[in-house]
Amino acid sequence: DHQTYTFLGDGCLMEGISHEVCSLAGTLKLGKLTAFYDDNGISIDGEVEGWFNDDTPARFEAYGWHVIANVDGHDSDAIKAAIDAAHAETGKPTLICCKTIIGFGSPNKQGKEDCHGAALGVDEVALTRKALGWNHGPFEIPADHYAGWNGVAKGTSAQTAWADQLEEYRAAHPELAEEFERRTRGDLPEDFSANADAYIQECQDKMEKIASRKASQNCLNAFGPMLPELLGGSADLAGSNLTIWSGCKDISGDNADGNYIYYGVREFGMSAMMNGIALHGGFINYGATFLMFMEYARNAVRMAALMKQQSIFVYTHDSIGLGEDGPTHQPVEQLSALRATPNLHTWRPCDTVESAVSWKSAIERRDGPAALVFSRQGLKPMPRTPQQVADIGRGGYVLKDCAAPQAILIATGSEVELAVNAADELAGKGIQVRVVSMPCAEIFSAQDADYRDSVLTPTIRARVAVEALHADYWFKFVGLDGRVVGMRTFGESAPGDQLLKEFGFTVDNVVANVMEAIG
Amino acid sequence: DHQTYTFLGDGCLMEGISHEVCSLAGTLKLGKLTAFYDDNGISIDGEVEGWFNDDTPARFEAYGWHVIANVDGHDSDAIKAAIDAAHAETGKPTLICCKTIIGFGSPNKQGKEDCHGAALGVDEVALTRKALGWNHGPFEIPADHYAGWNGVAKGTSAQTAWADQLEEYRAAHPELAEEFERRTRGDLPEDFSANADAYIQECQDKMEKIASRKASQNCLNAFGPMLPELLGGSADLAGSNLTIWSGCKDISGDNADGNYIYYGVREFGMSAMMNGIALHGGFINYGATFLMFMEYARNAVRMAALMKQQSIFVYTHDSIGLGEDGPTHQPVEQLSALRATPNLHTWRPCDTVESAVSWKSAIERRDGPAALVFSRQGLKPMPRTPQQVADIGRGGYVLKDCAAPQAILIATGSEVELAVNAADELAGKGIQVRVVSMPCAEIFSAQDADYRDSVLTPTIRARVAVEALHADYWFKFVGLDGRVVGMRTFGESAPGDQLLKEFGFTVDNVVANVMEAIG
Repeated sequence: DHQTYTFLGDGCLMEGISHEVCSLAGTLKLGKLTAFYDDNGISIDGEVEGWFNDDTPARFEAYGWHVIANVDGHDSDAIKAAIDAAHAETGKPTLICCKTIIGFGSPNKQGKEDCHGAALGVDEVALTRKALGWNHGPFEIPADHYAGWNGVAKGTSAQTAWADQLEEYRAAHPELAEEFERRTRGDLPEDFSANADAYIQECQDKMEKIASRKASQNCLNAFGPMLPELLGGSADLAGSNLTIWSGCKDISGDNADGNYIYYGVREFGMSAMMNGIALHGGFINYGATFLMFMEYARNAVRMAALMKQQSIFVYTHDSIGLGEDGPTHQPVEQLSALRATPNLHTWRPCDTVESAVSWKSAIERRDGPAALVFSRQGLKPMPRTPQQVADIGRGGYVLKDCAAPQAILIATGSEVELAVNAADELAGKGIQVRVVSMPCAEIFSAQDADYRDSVLTPTIRARVAVEALHADYWFKFVGLDGRVVGMRTFGESAPGDQLLKEFGFTVDNVVANVMEAIG
Repeated sequence: DHQTYTFLGDGCLMEGISHEVCSLAGTLKLGKLTAFYDDNGISIDGEVEGWFNDDTPARFEAYGWHVIANVDGHDSDAIKAAIDAAHAETGKPTLICCKTIIGFGSPNKQGKEDCHGAALGVDEVALTRKALGWNHGPFEIPADHYAGWNGVAKGTSAQTAWADQLEEYRAAHPELAEEFERRTRGDLPEDFSANADAYIQECQDKMEKIASRKASQNCLNAFGPMLPELLGGSADLAGSNLTIWSGCKDISGDNADGNYIYYGVREFGMSAMMNGIALHGGFINYGATFLMFMEYARNAVRMAALMKQQSIFVYTHDSIGLGEDGPTHQPVEQLSALRATPNLHTWRPCDTVESAVSWKSAIERRDGPAALVFSRQGLKPMPRTPQQVADIGRGGYVLKDCAAPQAILIATGSEVELAVNAADELAGKGIQVRVVSMPCAEIFSAQDADYRDSVLTPTIRARVAVEALHADYWFKFVGLDGRVVGMRTFGESAPGDQLLKEFGFTVDNVVANVMEAIG
């Protein structure tokens, strides 16, 4: 009897996301989902017939839904009967189409858009009370109405029955009951953190040169077996996002016993469903697409952050480095949007170690979402001391230092290797440069001032940020005296290495920028 | 015979935008639109039946389309017959459902996802040639095939007939023919610029305190009569966006003779349709929603910029100043995304004059889109000299200067008044502060260094930016020694003036930030 209910208005049914999620709900045969369509024929601009003439019941039948049309939305018996019919149909989601009158009872405003967003006003409220025969004072609930709606006894009884059932289950299966409660509370297994750290050190020792999307998949293979609550998916890019790990089992319309959802080409629907799954609880869920296609889902990413929900958004193909697919697929301004989203952690790791730390951070963060941004192309592994490995979790850290730095290079992801090479080149010229890796600028910015100043020494103003995404973000860290080697235009279609060269992501150009910044 | 054709794959039909635009195409009875559905049953993750089971013909019938199902997509006669049937149905758009095999002819890869994105490879190309009986060399087109596809004679004849018809029309209606060619070329009326400047000066003289969304509507009323090519619309917020002017006439399914489209609650669909209209030519088109809901349409906004198309996006309700609708409706990070989009001009005007300049700039910019960002609340008019009025078009200018500025305040939109008041308060304390209004930072950044330095004097490092949107963007202008009075969290639900106070948009806080920056 674990049912899900949702309410839809005319506006919801015009929005594209209604297509994405309702089409997939039909394919997945979500028999425990019941949607109420509040069909009042009015949206903010007035009567919808001028801009919305769908045959909505037919549309939902085309999605494989069970549709109950022509229900009087003001008749509670009719609605109850429809709900019963919805529950009886267990192989399909149900749409209950409720004909309603907006502002019902208001003599002058019912059935009109005027009562969508504005209060009725004192006079019209008085007329409405009269029309409805409602003679009670404001906030006064007559005893018989109160009794009719009072679900305390019923709820207490259901709650008790549930608690008793859980205790019976606990007696029979103590470990499973504890595991159920752990996942429902959203606690991680006790040894997760230590095991994850061991895996991170293993990555550091191994020094593999692979794409960070591949490092992400390796990480899922390492963490997945520890986390039965892990639920993954991709918007039709499973093989490119590398989000399927060895323990993945498909979820389908005929078998819900799995941990991987093929969301189809539905980025917004996927992301919104992920938020719904997070709100439900019991799962840690991730979903993937190309970084560029995050744009389709921007609002759901924002809502995850606003609702403080743990949705883990995996975005691969993270820059012009993806190559030939060209500027429609090459992100430029996307990280600016993600980093400006309050309460979102955006990670762009530079190798296997930072990739594993980003996953650990996202999994351990139960009060907000993370965006994990991975490369298509191979990335060189960086040597690190144990302290440096530990500092990755602070969002930004000194990856390569020198005795008396004259300049600081700040880089993320695929540009960290470039920054290190430029620093080596500059060292050869007798110029000492510190290299800072900044995989998660939001977490770095949340560190105490002492730590931040130890990484970005306030007196060192010759600073150059290097990132193959929009330049403007980085002035926060390099200031008016610094330089940014970044993107200021859209990309082009060519092999990734040629593009990176064309747009200035070369040792020579980074060196030249540092020299200019030093002055 | 002015037909429009479009191609759709399984992926397109999963995306939400397919619902938005196809639903509206049905409502608007677009009888000259023919869509080909390339129904190959494959998307990148494999056979779509696991994630896409719609009855697509039924879905499109529910939108009011004429649907031709079960066409063999490899049979050109069947396709020709379907196109003829599509043309014969003039009251509805037509969907031609073409059953196809992806990678047709490839013995080992046809019908599989392997041939979606990857090349077949030398061996499989050889096998495919053999299977198809194609014995010609690469890039060799046999004479009979060339002749069959050669449309030069037919095209020349059609082109000549069209040119002759236009000349006949010109002889009969010289002025109308010239007007047709002007609009098709995308030229503005010769006197537009001067008339617009006169209106801008009129706004300056009038000094009205109104919301900038209202200033935008006034501007449409002023410019609209000069521009018969103006085509407007809103995504179900016409009355809130104030995008209907006195010369607006609705476009409906039964009457295309109008200049205003009710797009319904379809922000992405609206924006993509605007791009299509811009690509078609002959119109200057604008469409509106709340700034927050730009997120739904982000990809279409980006595509307008990438395709260098003149779509004018009108975004009202531009900050927490909108008040009670709360954080789901209050933009914070949205301007960061817009400003980081290459080739997009983002305007946030501070009063009637800057609003009129923003519209003039967007209308005169034929090679790219503009986002015009307007307030819900009333904004105080600013006094300006004629030179200052002229400098608005440079994106940023000194609105209020002093003899020897110790600090610079930079503000946009509703925060300009606050900056001016803070400067006055500081002047009372003997501190001289320049106020810069920066309605379009992209245009300002494109000015020559002399002009930029005359506004933001390089030696003045005590700079404070004030904008009720995300703070990070402004470090580009204030640097490490400056301060930003901006948003770093989501908003809250309360009256707008209380929120602005709560989040630090007060004279006291701005003054305190300037004092700190001066040190």
